[in-house]
Amino acid sequence: MQRLLKEITPRTEDYSQWYLDVINKADLMDYAPVRGFMVIKPYAYRVWELIQAYMDARFQETGHQNAYFPLLIPESLFKREAQHVEGFSPEVAWVTQGGSEELSERLAIRPTSETITGIMYAKWIQSYRDLPVLINQWCNVLRWEKATRPFVRPREFLWQEGHTVHRTEADAREETQRMLNIYVDTLRDVLAIPALSGEKSERERFAGAVETWALEALMGDGRALQAATSHFLGQNFARVFEIDFLDEDGERRLGWTTSWGASIRLIGALIMVHGDDRGLRLPPRVAPIQVVVVPIAAGPQREQVLDAARQAGAEIGEIGGLRVHVDDRQEYTPGWKFNDWEMRGVPVRVEIGPRDLAQGQVVLVRRDTGEKAVVPRNQLALRVRELLDDVQEGLYQQALSWRDSHTYTVSSVDEILAHDVRGFFKSGLCAESACEDRLQTATGATLRVLEAGEPEGACLVCGAPAVRRAVFARAY
Amino acid sequence: MQRLLKEITPRTEDYSQWYLDVINKADLMDYAPVRGFMVIKPYAYRVWELIQAYMDARFQETGHQNAYFPLLIPESLFKREAQHVEGFSPEVAWVTQGGSEELSERLAIRPTSETITGIMYAKWIQSYRDLPVLINQWCNVLRWEKATRPFVRPREFLWQEGHTVHRTEADAREETQRMLNIYVDTLRDVLAIPALSGEKSERERFAGAVETWALEALMGDGRALQAATSHFLGQNFARVFEIDFLDEDGERRLGWTTSWGASIRLIGALIMVHGDDRGLRLPPRVAPIQVVVVPIAAGPQREQVLDAARQAGAEIGEIGGLRVHVDDRQEYTPGWKFNDWEMRGVPVRVEIGPRDLAQGQVVLVRRDTGEKAVVPRNQLALRVRELLDDVQEGLYQQALSWRDSHTYTVSSVDEILAHDVRGFFKSGLCAESACEDRLQTATGATLRVLEAGEPEGACLVCGAPAVRRAVFARAY
Repeated sequence: MQRLLKEITPRTEDYSQWYLDVINKADLMDYAPVRGFMVIKPYAYRVWELIQAYMDARFQETGHQNAYFPLLIPESLFKREAQHVEGFSPEVAWVTQGGSEELSERLAIRPTSETITGIMYAKWIQSYRDLPVLINQWCNVLRWEKATRPFVRPREFLWQEGHTVHRTEADAREETQRMLNIYVDTLRDVLAIPALSGEKSERERFAGAVETWALEALMGDGRALQAATSHFLGQNFARVFEIDFLDEDGERRLGWTTSWGASIRLIGALIMVHGDDRGLRLPPRVAPIQVVVVPIAAGPQREQVLDAARQAGAEIGEIGGLRVHVDDRQEYTPGWKFNDWEMRGVPVRVEIGPRDLAQGQVVLVRRDTGEKAVVPRNQLALRVRELLDDVQEGLYQQALSWRDSHTYTVSSVDEILAHDVRGFFKSGLCAESACEDRLQTATGATLRVLEAGEPEGACLVCGAPAVRRAVFARAY
Repeated sequence: MQRLLKEITPRTEDYSQWYLDVINKADLMDYAPVRGFMVIKPYAYRVWELIQAYMDARFQETGHQNAYFPLLIPESLFKREAQHVEGFSPEVAWVTQGGSEELSERLAIRPTSETITGIMYAKWIQSYRDLPVLINQWCNVLRWEKATRPFVRPREFLWQEGHTVHRTEADAREETQRMLNIYVDTLRDVLAIPALSGEKSERERFAGAVETWALEALMGDGRALQAATSHFLGQNFARVFEIDFLDEDGERRLGWTTSWGASIRLIGALIMVHGDDRGLRLPPRVAPIQVVVVPIAAGPQREQVLDAARQAGAEIGEIGGLRVHVDDRQEYTPGWKFNDWEMRGVPVRVEIGPRDLAQGQVVLVRRDTGEKAVVPRNQLALRVRELLDDVQEGLYQQALSWRDSHTYTVSSVDEILAHDVRGFFKSGLCAESACEDRLQTATGATLRVLEAGEPEGACLVCGAPAVRRAVFARAY
């Protein structure tokens, strides 16, 4: 697992190659034998666990419970909701043989679980007293994509999917927004990513949903990435799967359902929003290692420096409660280690050498800006903690300023082209989905979200009066 | 999700039906549309999460890291290790179609991941410095079993599988035992289950292993359940997948590998070891709800009693740090609630009624023995905590005494039959695996584990001098 530390492709030279280089050099994943499948290596998996921990706590706090639904869905069940099957069929992997037997019916490997939760909920729910049902699951799903990309669009990914049933439309709508907001919080507070949220247009809507709400984040190359979605499914799935209940007034009524999900794609977002030409930059809240201590230990004071580094590590870890690693490997130079931990995005580096020892100080280096500070040794734990907060905030501010400086209000297609289709483009839009198509043909940009508020001016494509406020971008 | 609380089948009448009744009434799982697949409902899933939390901490503590390997394995890769494929082929589900394309090669849904980790490790490991590789994954696996049973033998199950590579045989053997011991600890300290551990005979060995070590637990009907396994794989997989490394002396050497796993089957063990005719009995350490507070709130003091119950709950939860639930539902009687929470195995019940209020006391009831105690209200949190420790220990002691009173040293097949093949049967055994076969034909019992130590006497089947100390049982 030893990695050679070579230069990575600069972001400006070839962004896609830079992305793959970072993933490789930071030891995040490897390609599996089946095309489009990946192995998530321990370092990236730990990031995922940290994201999970935050989201899971928020789900619990809002009354959700975890459960586990099966991987395989009979074709007949999968096909019940017409729009749903139309949307997902091209991407489904099918099991046709179990052991030595040919199956009489093909089984879909779940691309998402609305159909299987639907049929189970129909069985479980009898009365209004059984509502709401608020269940989430953490699992793997498969989508047989043609163009794949590590983390962002693999054929198998890890995610969570929430599936809820409510007594009233208002409750289901409220849930849709509540979960969307938890995703907004996750991105902002944990991943240090400012996101744009809003409703999807009909064209970009989840197959089977009445409304799809989404978070869009702006990557370092000016393309958008859909980071999470929350769907108001109305009574579409309830009708098809007969999720009904006896209401308090003795009437039998259909339930209202929602679903919402976020995936390991968030790691792709982390890389592309925060990464630079030296590699990853991880927000402290999701950094497997928040602080690395590197002893600069040559000469006669070698052992003393190593001891001091280990002591500093213990202090930061045990007293400070931080995730710390002391890199006391002897086969590498300090310079090599600096590069290595920068590549892996560790937010704060502590350097300790003989001179620091003599002067009762340590050197702190923050990954986001590269800034160095010499601080008294006896303030180490305190200053490291402050610095981590600064890095978390610094990464967010930098991402925010990138997004804001690449968000344009436009009134023509040409303006989008003038910006090389890099950024978020806000404009009025008419009601015709043909205009979305035409814009995509001309620019490659798609409608990412519709924003709230009164539209102004004309449709940027056809010039008719605007009825929607749209945000366009080229997207991953 | 409302359950009708009806009687369950007594254990002595029909143990299998009792098991299914408990699962149903305690709301642990439901049958999925595909035969042999199950939905793990929130209550059972929470038990699994609590088991996971303990095991995962132990894995981390012993230097392991989590990662994620893909679900699908190409047939050619899966078939490389001859014994492995022979053992698992009959149970593999195959993906043959991806979207609209027929795949050129069948893809196995992992029944276990030695082949996929093998090929990846071969790529990652170059030098002795890269060793050991200590990786675990939490995931789903599929085994297309013919006879299925919820939790114990479903076609899809959740588990963890550790896959490690070591520089020396001694290191790999040590790892095999280390992980076996973690499973022993998990069963004893967390699940309150005394297990028997030892090596498997050749016949019962994991396909491709040099040695398989296992934990066997005795269920309430006197049958054994294999609770976890730890395999010393020697160089079998290393040879086939070319997992080799440049050693310190410049020689290229093959690695030594291990794998080890435990699954959601442990929930089956919990039910069958501890359950009784009133339902589940959960050890406090894995109980989603450790304490339930039931107000006995009729008459004019209704509100006062409800308030007192909520206060008691808050005290136990916030101050005591315990998982507590206050059952303030108005549509059920206290008696119905007692039954309901007993069915769900909640270790301790707190009852508060008007008289308790007046006398400054509460009633505590432990689930394992049904014993009641009246304790002063101001000692509530303390006494509940003590009682939980007592229940944890009480369940263990009861299971231990059940196991010990059903463990027999025998010297003939007839003795096993005389005990109706219920229990662990210890005996000397010759080296012939034919004797294992004959014993199974005669009794239905299989060799669960070989124990350490000098064998005594004769083989219980053929009478030849014993060379092994065997433990037999009928097994799930």
